[in-house]
Formats: sequence, C-alpha cells, structure tokens
Amino acid sequence: MIALYDIGNSGNCYKVRLMLSLLGIEHVLKPVDYQRGALRAPEFLALNPLGEVPVLVDGDLILRDSQAICVYLAKRFGGGRFLPEAPAELGRVMQWLSFAANELAHSTSRARGIVAGRRKGDLAAHQALGHRALAIMDAHLSGRDWLETGAPTVADVVCYPYTKLAPEGGVALDAYRNVRAWHVRLEALPRFLPF
Amino acid sequence: MIALYDIGNSGNCYKVRLMLSLLGIEHVLKPVDYQRGALRAPEFLALNPLGEVPVLVDGDLILRDSQAICVYLAKRFGGGRFLPEAPAELGRVMQWLSFAANELAHSTSRARGIVAGRRKGDLAAHQALGHRALAIMDAHLSGRDWLETGAPTVADVVCYPYTKLAPEGGVALDAYRNVRAWHVRLEALPRFLPF
Repeated sequence: MIALYDIGNSGNCYKVRLMLSLLGIEHVLKPVDYQRGALRAPEFLALNPLGEVPVLVDGDLILRDSQAICVYLAKRFGGGRFLPEAPAELGRVMQWLSFAANELAHSTSRARGIVAGRRKGDLAAHQALGHRALAIMDAHLSGRDWLETGAPTVADVVCYPYTKLAPEGGVALDAYRNVRAWHVRLEALPRFLPF
Repeated sequence: MIALYDIGNSGNCYKVRLMLSLLGIEHVLKPVDYQRGALRAPEFLALNPLGEVPVLVDGDLILRDSQAICVYLAKRFGGGRFLPEAPAELGRVMQWLSFAANELAHSTSRARGIVAGRRKGDLAAHQALGHRALAIMDAHLSGRDWLETGAPTVADVVCYPYTKLAPEGGVALDAYRNVRAWHVRLEALPRFLPF
C-alpha cells in the first residue's frame, strides 16, 4: 500500500493528495507532527534528508519532492494521462514543474507561510513575485484550457495548489481571470479533491 | 537547426550546453547581450516571459528552463540514455531536477551571483544553504557513482554546474569528497564539455 507522509495544511502535500485522488490510487496518509519536531527526527531524515514533506513510500521506493512524486504517480498509474510521452510535450510540461518548484515555491507559497507565522522573510517581496508569477500564468492561459498539451497534466496538478492558495498569502487573484477559469476547470475534473 | 539563447557565464545555460555536448547534438548558440538589456527586450520576453536564459528553439518548439530543456533533449535524442523510462527511476531522477531548480538555484548559484555583483541578498545565508545542499548530495553519493539509476542521467547533468561552480560563490568543496569524486567521473564522460 502506498503511504504518504503528510501535513494537512501543506500545499506541497496537497499536490500529491490531489494527484492520488485524480488517478484514483488507494493510499494511506501518515500525518507528520511537525509542531513536535517530527520533521527533524532521525527516522524522518532517513526518508528525506531535506526534512520536508511530502514523502511517498511505495514498496522499496522512497520519494521526496512533490513534483517528483506526481511524475512518478502519473507515469506508473496514469495510463498515458497526465504525463505526455512525446519529447516536445514532455519538455513543455517540465517547464511548469520547475515553475512550481522555484517561482511558486518562492512567491505565493512563501508569502502564505509568512502570513501564517511559519516562515520569516520579506512578505511584500514574496507577494510581488507572486503577482509576477500569476501574471505570467494568466497570459499563458489566454486561449488555453490547460497549461500544456490541451489536456490536464502534472503541470496543472503541481501549479494548482499554490495559485489557488495565493490569497492566504495576501496575493489576490482578482486580476487573473484566466487563472481563475483554469481553477474552475480543474475543480470540475472527476475525483477532484478540494484542499 | 537547434538554437540556444545563451549567456556564456551562466551556469543554467551551461547545463544545456553540457547536455547538448554529451548527446552530440548539433546546434547554434545565440549569445544574449544581457548587459545591454536584451533579457528585457519584447522579442526576448516573447520567447520567455520570465526574462531568463536559457531558451531553446527547435523548429516550432520554444522551451525555457534548463531542467525542462535537458529533459526534452534526453527524451528526444538520448536513445534511452540519460532519462530512464521505469516510473520509479524516473521519479528518483525527478527529485534532483527539483533540487537543481530550487535548492541549488537558491544556494550556491545565488551566492555566486552575489559575489559577482549581479544579484543582491544575504551572502552568508545563501552560502549556508549551499553547504547544506552539498552535504545532502555528498551523503547520498556515498557508495554511488551517479545520483540515480547507476548510470549518468539528466539528474547528474543539471546538478553538476552549480556544485562545480560553488567555490565561485565562496562555498568550498573540500569537505565534500564524494561530490568531488562524482565531478571527476562526470568530467571523464565522452564529449564532456568544461565550463
């Protein structure tokens, strides 16, 4: 049985829970008690030396990083959905995995952590980066239903959480009509799991 | 003919030049005159709204992001090398693409930019993150020749530049013997291209 080391309030864990749900994969959640230091415990660092959730365990496979886990799940269980095989389409999807790991992680995600008191940093600077990232996505989504390939892919799954949660970091979505319409489409997918 | 919009001193562009060289792919370099504002020019922003190199153009495919470009090249031209097909191995490789896009980009890479006067930020903080990232890689490489799968992959290609260049950001590699031995192995690959 696939196990996901999980924190309920984590957008990164939510990426994986959403992917698991969309693919209809049976799994168990292992809640990580981060407030009691579980992310720094030796047994957890043996699973992920970065000391972060999510971590997925599937037999002898131990995977960290929400993007890597979603790619694994799509490749193993997607049956051709969510992860394209054609090189150009795969490359296009990959752009958004880096966008989630870098641009969104250091903007809307970080702003949300600062507002909640879990992280330190320059809130206004992270919010400004969030607006820049959202503006880029909004322009890209003009005339498109999905980020790439014309169908939902891991790109959409990993970029959804920290754009949907942007308002929790004080980054309003009002100006990003294409992003909001894309949210609605994603939320209408079979087996969509709300945050 | 494949074209790479390139800055010679960029470690991110070097990732792509290295991948192109290892795969023996003919290409042309299009130097970007960033000191004269070329990254902010409308014609460049049409290629990459993030205003960053590298950008690869192959026919009607326009790709940004060094990780995405390397995945594309490996998938299209690798003939099974550099990018594994098995889901578990692909997932393991993907972990290091996020590591390059996030942990290395915000540590050794950022420190190098600050030392060179191109970026602003807390140098000591970025250097400390660099040591943390290198320590994690060094422990992982204990008993391994390559980051994943037992053979060189895109994971090695995208993690090499900003670990090799770490000393330019004031992050010495002396303590990371496994990382240094891995560098030597990578540098011995056929068609290796030095920075």
